[in-house]
Amino acid sequence: MDVAAVARCVRKSCYVSPSFGDSDLLRRFLRSSLSERSTNSDPTSGRKCLKLRGKIHRRLSFIRPITATDKSISSPSSDCAGETQQINGKKKNIVWHDCPVTKSDRQELIKQKGCVIWITGLSGSGKSSLACALSRALHNRGNLSYILDGDNVRYGLNSDLSFGAEDRAENIRRVGEVAKLFADAGIICIASLISPYRRERTACRALLPQGDFIEVFMDVPLHVCEARDPKGLYKRARAGKIKGFTGVDDPYEPPLDCEIVIQNNRDKGVSSSSSSLTEMAEIVVSYLDKNGYLKTP
Amino acid sequence: MDVAAVARCVRKSCYVSPSFGDSDLLRRFLRSSLSERSTNSDPTSGRKCLKLRGKIHRRLSFIRPITATDKSISSPSSDCAGETQQINGKKKNIVWHDCPVTKSDRQELIKQKGCVIWITGLSGSGKSSLACALSRALHNRGNLSYILDGDNVRYGLNSDLSFGAEDRAENIRRVGEVAKLFADAGIICIASLISPYRRERTACRALLPQGDFIEVFMDVPLHVCEARDPKGLYKRARAGKIKGFTGVDDPYEPPLDCEIVIQNNRDKGVSSSSSSLTEMAEIVVSYLDKNGYLKTP
Repeated sequence: MDVAAVARCVRKSCYVSPSFGDSDLLRRFLRSSLSERSTNSDPTSGRKCLKLRGKIHRRLSFIRPITATDKSISSPSSDCAGETQQINGKKKNIVWHDCPVTKSDRQELIKQKGCVIWITGLSGSGKSSLACALSRALHNRGNLSYILDGDNVRYGLNSDLSFGAEDRAENIRRVGEVAKLFADAGIICIASLISPYRRERTACRALLPQGDFIEVFMDVPLHVCEARDPKGLYKRARAGKIKGFTGVDDPYEPPLDCEIVIQNNRDKGVSSSSSSLTEMAEIVVSYLDKNGYLKTP
Repeated sequence: MDVAAVARCVRKSCYVSPSFGDSDLLRRFLRSSLSERSTNSDPTSGRKCLKLRGKIHRRLSFIRPITATDKSISSPSSDCAGETQQINGKKKNIVWHDCPVTKSDRQELIKQKGCVIWITGLSGSGKSSLACALSRALHNRGNLSYILDGDNVRYGLNSDLSFGAEDRAENIRRVGEVAKLFADAGIICIASLISPYRRERTACRALLPQGDFIEVFMDVPLHVCEARDPKGLYKRARAGKIKGFTGVDDPYEPPLDCEIVIQNNRDKGVSSSSSSLTEMAEIVVSYLDKNGYLKTP
């Protein structure tokens, strides 16, 4: 699909996947992406190269600039009907099918606004605990939420993925895409993943309409997470039994401009303190409330 | 994870992914699967081989018998905490994280039961039209539903997949896994895909608790679908411009025991008749109502 075809397909409530598959633009983008990632090899500074060896075409689907261009994501592009679409650089015989029930209709029905709460942080920083506390707090207010837990999703949708750099990126891409669908359904989707690289979080953010991707950074120092080590993973990583573990021999890039930062330095971990967990959840609930995502209690 | 470990992890509201990755059992299963698929080459009888060339490991994640063993899918397996899990034949350092808000809680909140309506049939049989009419009918009753359209999902989550046999299977597997998550969220998820092979539909069915996978077969003869050809795809397939097109040079296996069969032989297609579409949607709504999935209007 050329630029003109993309333009034809764009409608105000439509999102498209421009095909930069074989273009010079993509190659330049990819090269600059790789060189930028390679500028620093400090595992905690978040600048180390995420290697793109092997099947680069798999990565392309992740780094391509898909953008939600309006409020509704599941939307029409009537001019495309009958055309062969080119997505991710491949010709595909698919046609976008519009539906008369919109995101707006669904939000009206359940009296809340769909969005994605993206909780990022080191292993052991309390992401899953916050996700659960938040889900409980929202439920108590009568709001429908759903958790996409990084680990849990690997039992199902992403059970075919390893922990290699490429598959970790694909893991995040898929969770981002599924979270987008949940938000489009009108649900407050809580995604809880280490998601160590800024570029990957930014790509997931770009899938959502402006404001609907709410990034929550669990700002807990590495030594605190390691002291907690609730799953015994740091111990295994330090012993060399796990390779490429975030914070140990793979970098974590803290957000530079996320919506919410939650700090917790207690060695015992958030899960041992229900009061602090409730407080943390309340920070997020207040943000949602203030920004019009929640129905009146 | 060995069988004993699987058994330890199974709790009444838990689902597990047994690791048959490298076992003899899997190899036997795969062999018998392949030979069964090869028994008939009639493109309309639904028995032709779905070739498994190339990356067989990708397919394994699809054909392995993951089973939902109880009402709630997103559920705990507390004995697994801290263990290294083996999923799909690979060791993974992941730990299932339980959440206090259950499927039952969510269903109580929105006063309906989550499930998957899986609409299968040839291209042009009216799957997407039924999905939209059904979504509208449910919305009018105050029920929250969400459509996973086979084509639409290929613009996002599955934009990395081709139309080769392996990728088509992966496309269906992923939609099945996402539909399971939506049902677990309490939503009536309407999946609309050609999904030509029984084995793949059966695998998606197995992800859901008993009764929650409702298969709807759009029973429209090939010649009728081809006469409609709303997307011009049959024409392109007959001209040899699309290879492996279901019904032309790739088989469709009609369901043998699905929950609902909808017949429509009108040449003009269901989309041209809003009254017949409404009637079809009503058949599904009645089924859902009768089986306790809908809240009282």
